Amino acid sequence: MNRSTTGVGLGSAAVAVRARKEAAAAVKALMFDTFGTIVDWRGSIIQEGKAWSKSRDLPIDWATFADRWRAGIVPGMNKVRNGELSWTNLDVLLGMVLDDLLKEFQIEGLSDEEQAEWNRVWRRLEPWPDSIVGLMRLKKSYTIAPCSNGNVALINDMAKHSSLPWDLILGAELAGHYKPDREAYLTSVSLLGLKPEEVMMCAAHSDDLHAARSFGLRTGFIHRPHEYGPSRDADTAQPGEFDIVAENMLDFASKMQA
Amino acid sequence: MNRSTTGVGLGSAAVAVRARKEAAAAVKALMFDTFGTIVDWRGSIIQEGKAWSKSRDLPIDWATFADRWRAGIVPGMNKVRNGELSWTNLDVLLGMVLDDLLKEFQIEGLSDEEQAEWNRVWRRLEPWPDSIVGLMRLKKSYTIAPCSNGNVALINDMAKHSSLPWDLILGAELAGHYKPDREAYLTSVSLLGLKPEEVMMCAAHSDDLHAARSFGLRTGFIHRPHEYGPSRDADTAQPGEFDIVAENMLDFASKMQA
Repeated sequence: MNRSTTGVGLGSAAVAVRARKEAAAAVKALMFDTFGTIVDWRGSIIQEGKAWSKSRDLPIDWATFADRWRAGIVPGMNKVRNGELSWTNLDVLLGMVLDDLLKEFQIEGLSDEEQAEWNRVWRRLEPWPDSIVGLMRLKKSYTIAPCSNGNVALINDMAKHSSLPWDLILGAELAGHYKPDREAYLTSVSLLGLKPEEVMMCAAHSDDLHAARSFGLRTGFIHRPHEYGPSRDADTAQPGEFDIVAENMLDFASKMQA
Repeated sequence: MNRSTTGVGLGSAAVAVRARKEAAAAVKALMFDTFGTIVDWRGSIIQEGKAWSKSRDLPIDWATFADRWRAGIVPGMNKVRNGELSWTNLDVLLGMVLDDLLKEFQIEGLSDEEQAEWNRVWRRLEPWPDSIVGLMRLKKSYTIAPCSNGNVALINDMAKHSSLPWDLILGAELAGHYKPDREAYLTSVSLLGLKPEEVMMCAAHSDDLHAARSFGLRTGFIHRPHEYGPSRDADTAQPGEFDIVAENMLDFASKMQA
């Protein structure tokens, strides 16, 4: 080893910058978690809920409603994972949770179409303010694709709603496996025609990134401090804990030299 | 039936316009054949071939080379279709044909990397001059996606090369079936979360459209008179032969009210 590859004599900041440049140089595609990383699911559901219930004089705690909806899909995904349930896409899982929530929150008398429209709120989730600008910058240098547990139609409609500039849509449905199953990551990598180390999984959630890394992908952490509002602390990461650790999407784009 | 639904008393041109408007109104997504419909595979291969052989003083008939390459993948797709060959993506089929063509055209001494680079010419095919402008117009009103026999990585790299503005990439590889197998169309429709009649297959090739129609999709014909150069007549269609019959991509966009 010589000085130039070990960085002896360079300050740790310079070493970190060079390590980031090397990671970015090898990466050809960026795959993004969407719910929480690209879009503000909680804030969007609360906002739609408040607007909806305002004219109906229904005192509903929409923050809890949103939190319960998001948490409620986990058991369904686990049933798919352990084979108790055959492949069931996220639209359907979200609809099953909604059925229960409407009863629990005593929201009655919705027509089937009104209920379906409520389920489609997941297609209308608003991006964080920096998501689109960051993705546009990154798209010039990388293939950018969602790798979400949301089904293709849901993720496409969400993209059309907010002009998210994806190159293509990858993710759980194409593999028939929910993250963090290895198939969800590696089927997406395979469809890109790339090696795992040429693809970076980008997310605000450490568990998603730990899984991706265990299957050979590079990892990019994007901090989303407000994802859970006051209900729960958002994940944080220390510099060096993932290939890239970024404060937000613009910081992430800068660190990826985009 | 009343006058307004049968069009009695309206001129045939007005009836045709209304029929088109109705077709367009029901359609939510447009799926496009790519090779020949969006990009000029033949002209692009001839151009790259000429540039490549110029410095090497090789008298190669690149038009025949291109025609043979394109035709050469059909037997491979048929072997996949009848089960003689397990799923083999288009990159691999193109590479197998290229092996044979290099021998036949006595192009010798290529390194593996040079040969792989030649195979990647299918990622560098240039769009017809009106393709991008037309797709940009259509993208405002519809989901637009390729439904090609090209594998996802090939189609994505082609899109990155030329800035084709797809919303997402669908097609044969996601179904594990080549067009015109029904799975190639209906898996794509299913991933969009739509009914067949809400999706229009758009192509310069009648056989592609006849297949799509037989599975319930709407059909849009886009004339590409120069696809085969002087080697073969391009497909043509009469008004009314498909839901939309267009002279080119801009005419197609206009007829889709985009």
